[in-house]
Amino acid sequence: MMKLHDSMGPNPRLVRMFLAEKGMEVELVPVDLMAGENRQPEYLQKNPTGQLPCLELDEGSFLSETLVICEYIEDVHPTPVLIGSNAKEKAETRMWVRRIDLNINSNMANAFRFGPGHSLFKDRIRTIPQASDDLKLLAAEQLAWLDGQMEGRAFIVGERFSMADIILFAFLEFGSNFGQPMAPELKNIARWYESVAARPATQASA
Amino acid sequence: MMKLHDSMGPNPRLVRMFLAEKGMEVELVPVDLMAGENRQPEYLQKNPTGQLPCLELDEGSFLSETLVICEYIEDVHPTPVLIGSNAKEKAETRMWVRRIDLNINSNMANAFRFGPGHSLFKDRIRTIPQASDDLKLLAAEQLAWLDGQMEGRAFIVGERFSMADIILFAFLEFGSNFGQPMAPELKNIARWYESVAARPATQASA
Repeated sequence: MMKLHDSMGPNPRLVRMFLAEKGMEVELVPVDLMAGENRQPEYLQKNPTGQLPCLELDEGSFLSETLVICEYIEDVHPTPVLIGSNAKEKAETRMWVRRIDLNINSNMANAFRFGPGHSLFKDRIRTIPQASDDLKLLAAEQLAWLDGQMEGRAFIVGERFSMADIILFAFLEFGSNFGQPMAPELKNIARWYESVAARPATQASA
Repeated sequence: MMKLHDSMGPNPRLVRMFLAEKGMEVELVPVDLMAGENRQPEYLQKNPTGQLPCLELDEGSFLSETLVICEYIEDVHPTPVLIGSNAKEKAETRMWVRRIDLNINSNMANAFRFGPGHSLFKDRIRTIPQASDDLKLLAAEQLAWLDGQMEGRAFIVGERFSMADIILFAFLEFGSNFGQPMAPELKNIARWYESVAARPATQASA
């Protein structure tokens, strides 16, 4: 059985959501992020970047980077489809994953690391505290842009629930708990958020 | 035949390199980035983010986001393999693509947009000029980290040339021309850079 080295935070959360949507069970191995266990030599042998989560494969090798773990899970466990069942569907999902990841999620994460989370991160990574407020604003603007794109769509890529929904949900959930709530006027996003929150896999993996 | 809507810059460059390594020919459609042609309605219908490049598929639909275009090309034209021939190889390549993209390339690009390129970008996107110097430093530190990881390796993922090499090369080439040269003490990166620069596909797609 695969093991997921797991912690608090939106990145482990989104991998747990992805696994739950697939109906897969893995062993969860908790890593103490607050105590910096992920920056100790034992964990760095698993993932040299010191980040979480990381997936331990059956044969004992380790895979890290959240979005890559999801792609791997889809490759070895294709159904239910969360990325795509052909090249074009995959491309469509990945295009939206990319836009959300780069324009919203990464900016939200860095706004947190450089701002409210600075005391936790300042001795672990190079932080840019003077960018925190603008990153927060940038993420909010990009979410408003996405709200416009979502008019009439059930999910991010249209009628299919996909990895794009999972990654956005996990970060908006994080933001709502840590100082970056969604603007209430984003009606399409609000409607979509409620529908993803209600999914059994979302609730089972919280 | 597919068309690549193309311009100056490291992102179009890396897609052209990827296509050349595959031995594929596509029609190149130049878009005038300096004149802002990519921010006009005609181009925004192709890619609503206004970024380049964008791939026009045979049936007339459009695909954007550089790394997603590369994944699509690999899906429809698997050989020579540039991502992976099985789930584990794909995951390994994608893990390094991700680290390079997020920690090096994105930081270099934003350091440029927020710094030396500010006059071009300030009216097109939200810029964070006060972050430019730190982003440049962060990219340089992450490149130094990668140099350590590359000890004894021919290519980023080991003995296989891959998409990870292509994306790093395109951004280091850009950096060397626009104020972010590689530190000369990074011997592994320097050796690797020369070997990628000498490849026929690199030269044919310049």
